[in-house]
Amino acid sequence: MKGGEPMSDNKTILDYETVDIDFEKGELVIIDQTKLPGKTEIIRLSTAKEIWDAIYLLQVRGAPAIGVSAAFGIYILASKIENDTYDGFYDEFVKQRDYLDSSRPTAVNLHWALMRMDRLIQSTVEECKSNDISYEEGYKRIIEALKNEAVKIKEEDIWVCKQIGEYGLSLVKPGDGILTHCNAGQLATCKYGTATAPIYLGQERGYNFHVFADETRPLLQGARLTAYELHSAGVDVTLICDNMSAMVMKNGWVNAVFVGCDRVAANGDTANKIGTSVVATVAKRYGVPFYVCAPTSTIDMDTATGDEINIEQRKAEEVTEMWYKERMAPEGVKVFNPAFDVTDNELIAGIVTEYGIARAPYKEAFEEIFKKKKEAKFNIL
Amino acid sequence: MKGGEPMSDNKTILDYETVDIDFEKGELVIIDQTKLPGKTEIIRLSTAKEIWDAIYLLQVRGAPAIGVSAAFGIYILASKIENDTYDGFYDEFVKQRDYLDSSRPTAVNLHWALMRMDRLIQSTVEECKSNDISYEEGYKRIIEALKNEAVKIKEEDIWVCKQIGEYGLSLVKPGDGILTHCNAGQLATCKYGTATAPIYLGQERGYNFHVFADETRPLLQGARLTAYELHSAGVDVTLICDNMSAMVMKNGWVNAVFVGCDRVAANGDTANKIGTSVVATVAKRYGVPFYVCAPTSTIDMDTATGDEINIEQRKAEEVTEMWYKERMAPEGVKVFNPAFDVTDNELIAGIVTEYGIARAPYKEAFEEIFKKKKEAKFNIL
Repeated sequence: MKGGEPMSDNKTILDYETVDIDFEKGELVIIDQTKLPGKTEIIRLSTAKEIWDAIYLLQVRGAPAIGVSAAFGIYILASKIENDTYDGFYDEFVKQRDYLDSSRPTAVNLHWALMRMDRLIQSTVEECKSNDISYEEGYKRIIEALKNEAVKIKEEDIWVCKQIGEYGLSLVKPGDGILTHCNAGQLATCKYGTATAPIYLGQERGYNFHVFADETRPLLQGARLTAYELHSAGVDVTLICDNMSAMVMKNGWVNAVFVGCDRVAANGDTANKIGTSVVATVAKRYGVPFYVCAPTSTIDMDTATGDEINIEQRKAEEVTEMWYKERMAPEGVKVFNPAFDVTDNELIAGIVTEYGIARAPYKEAFEEIFKKKKEAKFNIL
Repeated sequence: MKGGEPMSDNKTILDYETVDIDFEKGELVIIDQTKLPGKTEIIRLSTAKEIWDAIYLLQVRGAPAIGVSAAFGIYILASKIENDTYDGFYDEFVKQRDYLDSSRPTAVNLHWALMRMDRLIQSTVEECKSNDISYEEGYKRIIEALKNEAVKIKEEDIWVCKQIGEYGLSLVKPGDGILTHCNAGQLATCKYGTATAPIYLGQERGYNFHVFADETRPLLQGARLTAYELHSAGVDVTLICDNMSAMVMKNGWVNAVFVGCDRVAANGDTANKIGTSVVATVAKRYGVPFYVCAPTSTIDMDTATGDEINIEQRKAEEVTEMWYKERMAPEGVKVFNPAFDVTDNELIAGIVTEYGIARAPYKEAFEEIFKKKKEAKFNIL
């Protein structure tokens, strides 16, 4: 059981999970990411407003971590619904579901997790009704099913990350230098992260990696989150500015690059945090293999190439004044601030999924991986 | 004549020179660069302490601008020396010279300019003494000579920058997109800058360039200085984070890159602000020509290759907390913070000097340029 604040002195982030639940108290237990890297605080949430705020305020962030928070959160809220009919219960549930869903409208995993819980309720209710099971008894079954489903969503997330870690680890050797960009770390998932999964698994097995974390302007996820979580876990991590990647690679300090991704097109073109394609270009020049860590859920076979991926533009203030004591650029200057860029498939040495490593040509490799996924019929329990 | 604070509303930075002198009042007139980009203030300095502080506190910075400030400064101080013998005068001068020289011990141009003024005094004194000229009369000649020499140093700086601008301008066409890194701008020289010289000359001639300025982490010279001075001069400038260069080049928005340099080796390898080699690598991938703007004074034929150039490491705090409202990285995390990197000659399309454009093989090209320089026997007056 987790809890308390701050994090105990003799524990590191790896002793915790980014999103957890205290079943006894009916509380969602998360690391408050808005306090990082200055303070490590574990917070406990039990009301709809508290859970909504945590997602809205980015106290929990990262698509998989948000999905698990929503699943645990809606379970906690559902378990407090007081009603006496199936339909009355479902009406109450839908209100809570829609409320949580409004906390970050564009977060795919948020909606996905809530709808997965919704479908489970509908099928359980249907089964109960067709078997003439009383609401009192049926309600218990629904809550038990929601609990199991939330746990399963979390365990799936951890399994996917761990598998990516295992495949990623096969690409490097003890003592290697690894560079990563942005935060595709434990803090964006429940455990291990994606790009950091090979690093954490290696850490558990005494690989002694030397990791370089790009600070990742403008939002500094590399400095605030990646450097924080790796440092906290005892990994040998060195923070660099994004423009220092060529120097560390030229010095021969980097044996592999691992990055996460937001979306992978069918041809392997990969959209990820702005600057990823710069790292890939530099890695190519210095003969450093560049790997994308991609859960199969991020591979979109309906997007033919990276050209079809729309890039979100964000506000200038992130570059010119956010974080700063004062403005760091003149008033009125134009700013170009894309959130992501697309890395061409030819710069990518391999795409690491939970079902194996895809190599060019990617379309064929992905088809093979999705075949494996289908055959596996994921069942972790 | 310049002066007053703040800069008049209807003027831009191009109406001023970074370093100027008010001969009537005996004042050094500079733009206080520590106030940028928030405020544009012109300050006037007349005492040794004020001039020393301005250099020490980086109110004036950039090797050429510091050299000219030192020349004007020591002229002002020498013109106030009250003595009655040549030796007494020279002793006083040496005190002032050494005091100014201590303001930034590693600034080559500072020492160089002060010693050039020193040699002039010595030769003038020698001439006066051998012609039995009285101290009263000789003193007037010395001060006149110092004044002319300081003006000459400044005019040489402007001439060099303007020539680089002319040659650089021949490499681009109206409407082109130009990317630059760090600040090799007017603010680092008296006028035009080096990397910005083609941009300002183009601006004077209606070329309508679209300029992208890398913010240049960790010290943000691109955001604070380059974006400021180009914006102030009415140039169409867009600020980007360093990791966005690949995206703007992939979009086809950049026709040429111009950067300054700290030192060029005999084979063309170029040391410049950290991140320059990342820009060069990305430019190569997207077929964008990458040009280094280098006064011949920065070409060091005694350094065979970039491998011989030592790279200054700077303190971690520049990356982790300087500028920021709070620390942006965890306490105790390791930081690698090199001030410069070396761009391999094969990534450089041309090196633009005041005597023409050098192309690979650079050693031979530089020999040709130095031959031209010798023949020219620089004389701008």
